[in-house]
Amino acid sequence: MSSPIPARIAQLRQAMAAQGLTAYLVPSADPHLSEYLPGRWQGRRWLSGFNGSVGTLIVTPEFAGLWADSRYWVQAEAELAGTGIELMKIPAVGGSQHIDWLAANVPAGKTVGVDGAVLGLATGRALDTALKANNIMLRTDVDLLDSVWPDRPSLPTAAIYEHKPPYATQSRVDRLALVRQEMVAKGAQHHFISTVDDLAWLFNLRGDDVNYNPVFIAHALVDMDKATLFLAEGKVPTDVAAALAKDGVQIALYAKAAEALATLPAGNTLLIDPRRITLGLRQAVANTVKVVEAINPSTFAKSKKNTAEVQHVRAAMEQDGAALCEFFSWLEGALGKERITEVTIDEQICAARARRPGFVSPSFATIAGFKGNGAMPHYRATEESHAVIEGNGLLLIDSGGQYLGGTTDITRVIPVGTISAAEKRDFTLVLKGMIALSMVQFPRGTASPRLDAIARAPIWAGGVDYGHGTGHGVGYFLNVHEGPQSIAPGAMPEPHTAMEPGMITSNEPGIYRPGQWGVRIENLVLNVPAETNEFGEFLKFETLTLCPIDTRCIDKAMLRADEVAWLNDYHALVKTRLDPLVDGAAKQWLHSRTTAI
Amino acid sequence: MSSPIPARIAQLRQAMAAQGLTAYLVPSADPHLSEYLPGRWQGRRWLSGFNGSVGTLIVTPEFAGLWADSRYWVQAEAELAGTGIELMKIPAVGGSQHIDWLAANVPAGKTVGVDGAVLGLATGRALDTALKANNIMLRTDVDLLDSVWPDRPSLPTAAIYEHKPPYATQSRVDRLALVRQEMVAKGAQHHFISTVDDLAWLFNLRGDDVNYNPVFIAHALVDMDKATLFLAEGKVPTDVAAALAKDGVQIALYAKAAEALATLPAGNTLLIDPRRITLGLRQAVANTVKVVEAINPSTFAKSKKNTAEVQHVRAAMEQDGAALCEFFSWLEGALGKERITEVTIDEQICAARARRPGFVSPSFATIAGFKGNGAMPHYRATEESHAVIEGNGLLLIDSGGQYLGGTTDITRVIPVGTISAAEKRDFTLVLKGMIALSMVQFPRGTASPRLDAIARAPIWAGGVDYGHGTGHGVGYFLNVHEGPQSIAPGAMPEPHTAMEPGMITSNEPGIYRPGQWGVRIENLVLNVPAETNEFGEFLKFETLTLCPIDTRCIDKAMLRADEVAWLNDYHALVKTRLDPLVDGAAKQWLHSRTTAI
Repeated sequence: MSSPIPARIAQLRQAMAAQGLTAYLVPSADPHLSEYLPGRWQGRRWLSGFNGSVGTLIVTPEFAGLWADSRYWVQAEAELAGTGIELMKIPAVGGSQHIDWLAANVPAGKTVGVDGAVLGLATGRALDTALKANNIMLRTDVDLLDSVWPDRPSLPTAAIYEHKPPYATQSRVDRLALVRQEMVAKGAQHHFISTVDDLAWLFNLRGDDVNYNPVFIAHALVDMDKATLFLAEGKVPTDVAAALAKDGVQIALYAKAAEALATLPAGNTLLIDPRRITLGLRQAVANTVKVVEAINPSTFAKSKKNTAEVQHVRAAMEQDGAALCEFFSWLEGALGKERITEVTIDEQICAARARRPGFVSPSFATIAGFKGNGAMPHYRATEESHAVIEGNGLLLIDSGGQYLGGTTDITRVIPVGTISAAEKRDFTLVLKGMIALSMVQFPRGTASPRLDAIARAPIWAGGVDYGHGTGHGVGYFLNVHEGPQSIAPGAMPEPHTAMEPGMITSNEPGIYRPGQWGVRIENLVLNVPAETNEFGEFLKFETLTLCPIDTRCIDKAMLRADEVAWLNDYHALVKTRLDPLVDGAAKQWLHSRTTAI
Repeated sequence: MSSPIPARIAQLRQAMAAQGLTAYLVPSADPHLSEYLPGRWQGRRWLSGFNGSVGTLIVTPEFAGLWADSRYWVQAEAELAGTGIELMKIPAVGGSQHIDWLAANVPAGKTVGVDGAVLGLATGRALDTALKANNIMLRTDVDLLDSVWPDRPSLPTAAIYEHKPPYATQSRVDRLALVRQEMVAKGAQHHFISTVDDLAWLFNLRGDDVNYNPVFIAHALVDMDKATLFLAEGKVPTDVAAALAKDGVQIALYAKAAEALATLPAGNTLLIDPRRITLGLRQAVANTVKVVEAINPSTFAKSKKNTAEVQHVRAAMEQDGAALCEFFSWLEGALGKERITEVTIDEQICAARARRPGFVSPSFATIAGFKGNGAMPHYRATEESHAVIEGNGLLLIDSGGQYLGGTTDITRVIPVGTISAAEKRDFTLVLKGMIALSMVQFPRGTASPRLDAIARAPIWAGGVDYGHGTGHGVGYFLNVHEGPQSIAPGAMPEPHTAMEPGMITSNEPGIYRPGQWGVRIENLVLNVPAETNEFGEFLKFETLTLCPIDTRCIDKAMLRADEVAWLNDYHALVKTRLDPLVDGAAKQWLHSRTTAI
């Protein structure tokens, strides 16, 4: 934190010049392609000062730009001001405009540098193809951060622990067997895994290496008769090591992962997932090894929650909903009587969840945004900068919890004081979008991105759109953002996004009016069987999230009869399921807020 | 037609063996990547006996398979029976399962052959990548058809002609200027075009080299100061040649196209579209030439019809609708009185259109399918095999016309005798899907594939799905299937599919019950501005097609009030627009069939 941003960029430019690089690319990525990056791999943040979780920095001798999608534009504008780094707007999440920019702006014959150790293989290939087509060279063996970042953090050291029954519903031996079955089907004797949610699921382990996601930093090599976990020293308690050894899992040093790939027996076959391994690790594999590319078997398997897991999630949702009843009844009682800020809300909502059985931690940083702050989808109030909840306006609260039996993620918007007809209109449009997606039935195997427009159509009809996806997959006491399915416009309708029974996805359309207000309504939904006939199997959504949607924000004239019926049915269900878990003011609040309209 | 299919495959295998090939791939493609292939490039049809327009044949020493999507399964089963060629079902249009099959089934170290002259560059790259990942080699310089196909047809010889004002709304000089402007923007001095609809549009020329699409077989090289059309000898009448020369367009021999690419000046830049040029032609370009890849400027430009073109299309739609009023009133009067077959319907519908001003030809082979025949989306009745229209059932008629001022494509379904509740249910589900898409509003620039599920959701809700896309782009007195936009699930939501004002697309959901009936309702819709606000520009659809939708097939209880309102509004419009153009029985029929429900 010592040097100012322009000085850091200047140092990077010196390092680039020393390596003969015309451009250097710093992605938001670590060797595990995680969403939440340990400090060691927060280089883009350190270099640019932009604190958003997704963004790509490109530096040339004359230019520095930060590519970010619309979720981050407001935040990035503010954080980049005065740094000399330009905000480059990506129109849709996952856009590759920065690659196009490099292809168009780096002269032919010159070289672009990037650290292949933090570059996804699929992304790296796209980059390489685009640059090659323009006769631009790419070097992926240059980690310039090491030289320009004096106080770069080391690897996280938190101890790992076991996720145990009854919440762990399947043994690691069974899960390894399942993965090996897929390896056999692909003709592979080895399978390398870098993605930390896959590792946590496969080995029934959890950790504390990043905020909010109970994961640990590691790689794994699964062979037919053993598996090796590559971890930093001192992370494995003795009893856990013993339990792992009993199940055929050995421990090795984190730094030895690439070497293990480099020394695979010649003629053998390795299964890797090009979206879930870095270019650097792929390059470590010897040419004598045959490489089969497919989605990690664990990624697909863990997305399909089994019956026992679903039962735990339903129970966790009840606890979560009950906590929210307590929180909201407190909030409504306190508003106007005591000083409440966006920070107070974060504290209170976390405290309410913490009182519930099975709670472990928040599943992400609470977003409590009042009025204009609600228009920033990834806003976070801080001690230094936050709004006081007073006067009139919409208050958006997006929060979630990690429970031993599931992960929650919910957004609700409540009115403070008197709200306008325009605010009600936006709320009702978002509700219509959320209900439209809630009611949809679709063929099993439908690529999840195809469903995005169903939530969007009622909002488009109102002349509005939103710059983020409609839904993301959610883990089981794991990452709150977890694939492979994703209800998002930029996502490709490829086989790995096929909707299967047991998948849990968020349903969260929104409307954002910068400087005025934001509306987002979010439930988690489960893929369940709907009907089977000569056209095949059809799925529908069971809404898992249990918490009233504030009907005071609704313009009922805008709702169709079937939409009103959906809402009233939902509220009847919420009341029935949560009633046994709340008392006093919270029970009264639940009854009041679930009244039919 | 002399030898039976198995003998042809055996000959191909001999030729493969002589070349050391383990597998040979025959795509449905020509050097122009056209949908309708001149006889010369109907090799897949000649080899396999499968007459569908899309399908890929792969032959190995022990295996022969024909990959086709669900539109063709019924037809392919029948046509491949007894040939020894296996039908390999592709679950969605545009699937690349045949590539996966090659990757999985050809042993490492062996070679796959294909004629690069009929292989799209983008497809060829995907094939190459998939094979390379499995250490399989690819040879693209082998046209085995020439040796095994004794009576292979030569190039088509029809004369080209000019598309003239007022229907041609922009001169070729202006269009060339527009393309050159895009070339300058991309830094290119040369642009090569192989796609015949692009050539017809750019040069305001039309031809008669394939059925239904008024195109001619050619390539073009556009330089900054001249353009060269590569055509088979004898295709250009003297006056056309003179007109072209006046506009800076010279004629060269068709066979000289590759040579022109091979001799481009070193250091210059060539613009090509990887989806619209073959691998063979790309390989003809010298390494000293820089290649820039982007969508053909003409492809995007011609999809956005200008105001004058839209006016001509609206007029053509009125003529087309009037012709259909005459046809349907004749049909309803004749049914039960004279013998009507699916073939009669084709004749009568073509005759009705032919009486209309500006009519040139049908825009595709009429699909008239009664009862179970309607369940085959690409069915064609023949003199040898067709149904008589008698008894009870649904009759599906999909037809269209080429007019000097536009291209039409419409599907209607009418009841014959008494129809069942199940038939009405399917009809109404399809209608709901068609109306849902008709009513949608969406941001300008929305990737067209994203809209597909909006038409499908009401049909999915009924436990049904259909195996084809919901909509295809339509040309202006050009191809009835014309991109770049496409409302289809398999299509990628990429920039080139962005919806822009002036684009014309079909809206044609369906339901098919093999052996029982098929329902499809199809209108052409135009992208028109809806509103502009702080969220940007929004578009909506203007329905261009003017013809009653048979309300006798509707189960009104299944329709929402807004759906009924859309239908009644549509019928009021149809009546107003067509009334002046019809008389007598046709007028009476129009009035009767546009009555509000």
